Amino acid sequence: MVILGIDPGLATIGYGLIKVGRKINGESALKYLDCGLIETSPSFGHPERLQKINNDLSKLIKRYRPDFLAMENVFFFKNLKTALPVSRAEGVIMLTAAKNKLPVFTFTPLEVKMTITGFGRAEKEVLQKNIKKILKLKKLHKAPDASDALGVALTLFLRGLVKEG
Amino acid sequence: MVILGIDPGLATIGYGLIKVGRKINGESALKYLDCGLIETSPSFGHPERLQKINNDLSKLIKRYRPDFLAMENVFFFKNLKTALPVSRAEGVIMLTAAKNKLPVFTFTPLEVKMTITGFGRAEKEVLQKNIKKILKLKKLHKAPDASDALGVALTLFLRGLVKEG
Repeated sequence: MVILGIDPGLATIGYGLIKVGRKINGESALKYLDCGLIETSPSFGHPERLQKINNDLSKLIKRYRPDFLAMENVFFFKNLKTALPVSRAEGVIMLTAAKNKLPVFTFTPLEVKMTITGFGRAEKEVLQKNIKKILKLKKLHKAPDASDALGVALTLFLRGLVKEG
Repeated sequence: MVILGIDPGLATIGYGLIKVGRKINGESALKYLDCGLIETSPSFGHPERLQKINNDLSKLIKRYRPDFLAMENVFFFKNLKTALPVSRAEGVIMLTAAKNKLPVFTFTPLEVKMTITGFGRAEKEVLQKNIKKILKLKKLHKAPDASDALGVALTLFLRGLVKEG
């Protein structure tokens, strides 16, 4: 089972892919596959930027053939000016998933922190440290959005919402 | 020139199509083409609902081959719970336009009222009456969202932002 985690945005979308193998001695074999950023330039309009997100995400899905998409869902924003462009990107991410018959699960940042650190208000650093530890990574991607996306993918698996195989 | 006007939403999207013909005696020949609603059911998840919007809108574009898409852009919402789903739909509408190489113009409700009635805070009824008059319609669609979409399409034309032909 492959899970694609997404940390949404209009300018920067973090993505992270993990593979869950069959159980060995009762423990699931978790494997890090890839992580990185999809980026769009503010010198283009929203329609063109959303199209780039759609194109790049479609390529990722074609390449890794994930079984599920897990997306961070930020309900609370400091202001609407930030929220609306992110929501437009979320819409496009959800549509891209639907077109590829990928079930979508959403988690709030609190749920991600809760699942990965056991504490909903954990510091960013603690979250990142735990992601690194769980996936047995030597070091994390330099962009926090990319590791955050791995955290969202891990959340879907750790919550036991999907079957492994 | 054909303009597709859109009044965005997640449950109900209004659409309106007008055709602008070549000038006759210095006056452009405005023609009403079609208007109506794209509707999605709350019994489905956002990804499925966004996919229906994408499918239905793509069919409309294939059928009428518009040259421009004009969308109402609601910056101000009473609460985020209303705003975020609408923005997700906006993202999908913009993506569908971009994929069909349709340039997108956005107008606030104030700009639409200003252009069609000359007064940014005009009553809904006055706006609807003017749309009916400008397009020489016998009666308006029973759904206000559909006539609103015609108003957005008219706004793009009346503001002289696009060339007719």
